[in-house]
This record gives sequence, structure tokens and C-alpha cells, in this order.
Amino acid sequence: MSHFINNNFEDVLINRHSVRHFDPKVKISRDELQTMISEAITAPSACNLQPWRFVIVDTVEGKEKLASFFMKFNKPQLETSSAIVFVFGDTQAYKSYRDLWNKAYEDGRITAEKRDEVLKTFLPLYEAASYEGLIHDAKTNSSLAAMQFMLVARGHGYETNAIQGYNAKVAAETLGLNPERYVPNMAIAIGKPDPNNLPSEIKSTRYTTEDVCQFL
Amino acid sequence: MSHFINNNFEDVLINRHSVRHFDPKVKISRDELQTMISEAITAPSACNLQPWRFVIVDTVEGKEKLASFFMKFNKPQLETSSAIVFVFGDTQAYKSYRDLWNKAYEDGRITAEKRDEVLKTFLPLYEAASYEGLIHDAKTNSSLAAMQFMLVARGHGYETNAIQGYNAKVAAETLGLNPERYVPNMAIAIGKPDPNNLPSEIKSTRYTTEDVCQFL
Repeated sequence: MSHFINNNFEDVLINRHSVRHFDPKVKISRDELQTMISEAITAPSACNLQPWRFVIVDTVEGKEKLASFFMKFNKPQLETSSAIVFVFGDTQAYKSYRDLWNKAYEDGRITAEKRDEVLKTFLPLYEAASYEGLIHDAKTNSSLAAMQFMLVARGHGYETNAIQGYNAKVAAETLGLNPERYVPNMAIAIGKPDPNNLPSEIKSTRYTTEDVCQFL
Repeated sequence: MSHFINNNFEDVLINRHSVRHFDPKVKISRDELQTMISEAITAPSACNLQPWRFVIVDTVEGKEKLASFFMKFNKPQLETSSAIVFVFGDTQAYKSYRDLWNKAYEDGRITAEKRDEVLKTFLPLYEAASYEGLIHDAKTNSSLAAMQFMLVARGHGYETNAIQGYNAKVAAETLGLNPERYVPNMAIAIGKPDPNNLPSEIKSTRYTTEDVCQFL
């Protein structure tokens, strides 16, 4: 794991704002993008299923594919970002679950008993789950990795904008994924802010804690 | 905003692990729980709709309600955590959207033109959205706040465990929320780890970056 350029948690968290106009001259290496993904996927997931999949679009051809199904108001991010990371949920992550735990056993990290206990407890829940239930886990858990990616980006000195304005029905297929298996969650534009088009200093209006939480 | 006890972003992110056995003697004040929520809800959301709702359960009576629909293997967290924060998605967040932007205008933070532009661009998308689409935004966006809450907890010196093993059908109603409006996302147990029952040092097995991402 790399050390972060910005390792101030409070700053990373509190001063994150959506940036829609990036400096188009800034490129991010694929190595660094992969490092950021590896840091983002330390997110937790139900039963450690890790039901996420990332398509990183950093070529003109790839961005043209995105443009074909993105809403128009997201054009600035598409045109100026260094990359767009499209986050999908994987509804069939449970099918690799046996292999994942077998590998942990073969690597000597857990006992055969522990492996068998995990598989016996959790795998049947997924094998019997409805498609709707699998979508729920895939979407909510891949969002956890998506949020970590946005914070990790700031740790690396970049800014992001999460995008859900697109035709979700064609997203997976257009990006070369099986649409039955992979459900689109959100796209995240990443780059350095355009110094000539900085976001306004006005923070977006937020509800108060009292508006959104209650005790029981 | 408070300063974090642990403000080392790399440590907060990389060394977060699920804790299932908490020290039952540790209480967290409602003030601090609310502060953590206020930090978590700096998360982004589509069109700034903020479609999240938190029920914070920190009483014996509240935990008994949770126990009535949680799966058995989540009993240790229920019994030992300082609190359980149940995260819901709000499928009707768009109904407060006009008030939110009017308030920003009345507070002198945006112009009437900007307010009208935002409302004209985004509100019709939600007013015409399917219930399925509203659930998508509610679940994925409230997950972003959930992830931030888990990291914020570490900033405050606590650990968490995200839980999705419960009967989702009865969650909202049992906790006093309208089940049509609020969709259950996940529950997050929070507290200090039990010093007599620390998690094993073995990190959960993870897929590699190559397993879960591709370039386009």
C-alpha cells in the first residue's frame, strides 16, 4: 500500500466536494488507478463476498461509449476527467465464494474446519437468495467500495464526481459486461480540478442531523 | 466539526476490520453518535438528494426489537455493541427537495435563478422516476453515508461491523418507520473491541485488483 499524499483524515472527509470540471491535461497512470482500486476494495461486504466490479475508462474510445448513454449534463466530467471508474455490483459473486475460502485454506491462513463452517453458514443463504436479494447486496456493498474510492482519490491528491445520470439499462452491455450478472451502480469521474473553472465556494445545502436521525 | 482522535487516513482506511465482540461496558454518548452521523452525511448523493435515514439503537428495549428480526449469528454484536445504527434509504427524499433549495435561496446562499435551474433540471427526473429507480438511488446513496460512518467511527476511536443478516421485510416497521418510504440498507454495530475477545489477526481473504477491474 502506498502512503497517501494527503493523509489528513478530517481534510479528506470533510473537504471532499464534487468536481465537475477537471484539468484535461492531467493523466493518471493505470498503475496509480489500480492502486486506488486496491485501497478502495478494503471496504467490507456481507459475508466478505466482495460483490463489486470496476470498469476504468481512460481512453477516447471508452469515453465515447460512455457518452452514448450518459445524460447531457454530465458531459463536462466525461470530457475533462482523467478517467471514469464505472462501479458495478456483481450478483454472482457467491459463485466464487468456495474458491476464495479454499484458497485461504490452501495458503494455510485458516483451518479446514473454519473454511467448512463459513461455507456451511453463508453459502446456502446466497444459493437460496432471490435475484432481488442478490442485487441488494451487490448494489449496497459495491457502494461501500465506491465511497472509499472517492476518499482514496483525495488521499492521492485528486477530486471526484459520482454520477448516476445515465441509461442504466444499457450500461453493462455497452461496457462489455454481462448485464444479467453485473448491475450498474455509479460512475466516478476522477482528476485534478480545472484551475480555470473551480467549483463555487458555496457548500451544498445539507439537512441537519436532527432531520435524518432518531434514537430508539 | 470535531477533530478526530485518529486522524491518520491510511490507518483509518487500511486497518479497518469488522469487530463482532465489543466491550459491553463502553457507552457512547448520544452527542457523540450524532456528531459521527453529521460527519458521515458529508457523503455525496445524486442531485444532493441525501436519501438516507438513521435509526440509532442504544437502549435495551431498542435492541430487543432488533433481536426479533436479526439472524442468530449477529447476536454477539447486538448484545455487546454500544449502539447499532440502522441505515435506511429514503425513497421520498425528492419530496423535500424544493424546500431544501428554497432554504438555500432564503439564506442568501444561491440566487433564485440557480435554485430554479436546479429544480427544473433534477426534480422532474425524480417525479417521473419508477419506485425501483427511487430504491436504487436510496440504497446506493445511503451506502455512501454508511461507509463514511464506519470510517468516522475509527476516527473517533471505535470499531464497527456492518450487518445485513436480518429479515429486511419487517425492519422499517419494527423500528417505527413507514416501510413504503424507507428501505433497509444495513445495520452498523459500533463500540470498542472486547479486550478479552479480539478478532483474529488473519485478514479476510481478498480478491486482487486484477480480479475485479479492467480498463476500457
